[in-house]
Amino acid sequence: MRLSRYFLPVLKETPAEAQIASHRLMLRAGMIKQSSAGIYSWLPLGHRVLRRIEQIVHEEQQRAGHIPMLMPTLQPADLWKESGRYDAYGPEMLRIRDRQDRDMLYGPTNEEMITDIVRSNVASYKDLPLTLYHIQWKFRDEMRPRFGVMRGREFLMKDGYNFDLTREDALHAYNRHLVSYLRTYERMGLQAIPMRADSGPIGGDDTHEFLVLAETGESEVFYDSEVTDLTFGDRDIDYDDVAQCAGVMEEFTSRYARTDETHDEALFNAIPEARRRTARGIEVGQIFYFGTKYSDAMGATVQGPDGKPVPLHMGSHGIGVSRLLSAIIEANHDDKGIIWPEGVTPFHVGLVNLKQGDGATDAACDGIYQALEAAGLTVLYDDTKDRAGAKFATMDLIGLPWRITVGPRGLAAGKIELTSRRTGESEELAPEEAVARLSEVYAAHR
Amino acid sequence: MRLSRYFLPVLKETPAEAQIASHRLMLRAGMIKQSSAGIYSWLPLGHRVLRRIEQIVHEEQQRAGHIPMLMPTLQPADLWKESGRYDAYGPEMLRIRDRQDRDMLYGPTNEEMITDIVRSNVASYKDLPLTLYHIQWKFRDEMRPRFGVMRGREFLMKDGYNFDLTREDALHAYNRHLVSYLRTYERMGLQAIPMRADSGPIGGDDTHEFLVLAETGESEVFYDSEVTDLTFGDRDIDYDDVAQCAGVMEEFTSRYARTDETHDEALFNAIPEARRRTARGIEVGQIFYFGTKYSDAMGATVQGPDGKPVPLHMGSHGIGVSRLLSAIIEANHDDKGIIWPEGVTPFHVGLVNLKQGDGATDAACDGIYQALEAAGLTVLYDDTKDRAGAKFATMDLIGLPWRITVGPRGLAAGKIELTSRRTGESEELAPEEAVARLSEVYAAHR
Repeated sequence: MRLSRYFLPVLKETPAEAQIASHRLMLRAGMIKQSSAGIYSWLPLGHRVLRRIEQIVHEEQQRAGHIPMLMPTLQPADLWKESGRYDAYGPEMLRIRDRQDRDMLYGPTNEEMITDIVRSNVASYKDLPLTLYHIQWKFRDEMRPRFGVMRGREFLMKDGYNFDLTREDALHAYNRHLVSYLRTYERMGLQAIPMRADSGPIGGDDTHEFLVLAETGESEVFYDSEVTDLTFGDRDIDYDDVAQCAGVMEEFTSRYARTDETHDEALFNAIPEARRRTARGIEVGQIFYFGTKYSDAMGATVQGPDGKPVPLHMGSHGIGVSRLLSAIIEANHDDKGIIWPEGVTPFHVGLVNLKQGDGATDAACDGIYQALEAAGLTVLYDDTKDRAGAKFATMDLIGLPWRITVGPRGLAAGKIELTSRRTGESEELAPEEAVARLSEVYAAHR
Repeated sequence: MRLSRYFLPVLKETPAEAQIASHRLMLRAGMIKQSSAGIYSWLPLGHRVLRRIEQIVHEEQQRAGHIPMLMPTLQPADLWKESGRYDAYGPEMLRIRDRQDRDMLYGPTNEEMITDIVRSNVASYKDLPLTLYHIQWKFRDEMRPRFGVMRGREFLMKDGYNFDLTREDALHAYNRHLVSYLRTYERMGLQAIPMRADSGPIGGDDTHEFLVLAETGESEVFYDSEVTDLTFGDRDIDYDDVAQCAGVMEEFTSRYARTDETHDEALFNAIPEARRRTARGIEVGQIFYFGTKYSDAMGATVQGPDGKPVPLHMGSHGIGVSRLLSAIIEANHDDKGIIWPEGVTPFHVGLVNLKQGDGATDAACDGIYQALEAAGLTVLYDDTKDRAGAKFATMDLIGLPWRITVGPRGLAAGKIELTSRRTGESEELAPEEAVARLSEVYAAHR
């Protein structure tokens, strides 16, 4: 993409309303624009990152055997009356009346709707196990929306629902989700720690939240420092292997790690003092096992092996897709701007022409641009006539992990400059060496 | 995908409420499920087609130089009060009040919101031309939602907006959209005819609707039979070439083709009688040029070359993404079910195992499955123990364009059967020949 033809409205000044780094940087980098309190448009650069995060979530869900579908944003109130949550859910539920005076709502979550779909279409235990998920816009009418898309009202969430014959099968689904989530977050360059949490209005006893440590997090967390040494890495996982998934669950949740909702001072104090940590965290996902809570209330049964009806064992599993942008930026930025992890960057590389309008420099940039695209890399090419300083400042602000700088002096020696946004280190290379280097770097992020 | 692990709830009986073929077939093929009047969940098979159509729209928009972004579903009423449409828009607008008693609405279209974004961020004529688009859920509270997703209330639409300095530039944007739309529909296997139409609540004088001819269409249309002879084909288009885009516009719109809204009996009767046609059509898209209607009302100006403020010339351009599924099925089905065009099929090929559980047949199917996937083709493998007749009926119903049938008798001779859903013709081939044939067929649809 040539910057001269793109829409990247960066701001020089920091909007006064932004209190945390990710909100400030998303506004300054031209990624989002607020339209109402807690409701945002995703400008082109922000939209690219959002789509990339969605893509990773889709890939990891499908790798785990979960099936994509899509439920609508608006739901009939009747379904929520069946489960008993219509009255129980507070003013965060956006209630709507249509022109026929029917009670509707903008879905904050989808347990009722998916249970309705499954009870209408799944009759036998032979159709199980089944995990369906979707990535759809949700609405929670927060009293105080704040921090940009971190705590917005209209937000994008992946929510998935497992349906199983037994508690044991459903607990495998729970573990499978935990494994797939660990892998999902790591691909985004995030360490998200599973912590025992409270189930809130979803219900059930078994639940873990995934938290990214950050000073600006809204939750207080308590953990054994050993949990931050764990990495998922490049493991070969068979998601049908019950023991393997249970092993990963054990490995990642056996040490103390809890949010303030479930914190237990005595257990915490049993950890050696040098390993006790308190910090703040951003919640980026949560998994639940809640048994037959919804299937009992809504009559969702299947015929079991003995011919008798069995209520379905269920869980639900969410990833805050739009919120993840905030979390990633909170964990990856400096004074100059964002520093995208390679897995989620909106463009793989920025290309800066130091002398736009100079025939030789323009031609060299065009050649490098084409070579990068031919190698499957996405490029944002600053082909404007701005000063070099302004071009560098914009590239640093929007945070592409790699920058190629092309100027007449280097070209005279057959060299361009390759700069890492994270380390700030530069290297002089022949253009084809830079392309090869970047292809190698990104091979792990396809 | 193995059918035994998929969620494909096909129905044997036709639901009584479905009046047209596409609605019946989408319900029977387990593609959608209604949750409220005019509001549907997209079950896995339907979701795959929806995503494929979205993908084609994205590719063709970006090929034309248009920039993707995403605006939220809920909009503040204030923006619509600025343009004057808040009161003018009738009861089809779903009006919502949030917990702070602010007036909101579920967007039926986005002229106001995009104009607000552009007026806040675009200051100079140097930033033009600019075309932004998004694919987002919309809501129109239809009095009588019907025909499934053909006339739903919550529906997915691509809407794009061009911003130009002059009327001439904006008319080029109009032509560019017409060209990209012709190409988009043809990739989906549809002939969509641009017809002079009425602009309705969007406004402006220049507008064309794209109509797919079908008996179940809601619009009456009148046209010169020569328009149905036109095909876009595999043209090499430079979307910056004003004359080339104008030439395509001229070619596709110079003959008489109008909806009943703009029909002119005298002009129609001037066509030689043998070429006069009346028919019914399904509207699948519309393009508008409306000049400075919104930029005047909302104060969206840029600094012109002479330093003076100039109101932006605008147009908007929509494709009914979810409705397209209905239109494609109306144009592509028979008594047995859907017949997907190759460009939008949910899976490239169905694989039917005639003797599931037989070691040799299972192994052959596994090998073919892997070879197809290795060739980049998506496969739905019916690995259930159902009878052959039931398996064929399901494959015919869901309409994959190609079926590979594997049984012990054929395998003994080293052959499988490749069947075209559209012609019903079968051919016996070696497995590797079938893979090669399908790779070739789909090479044109990547």
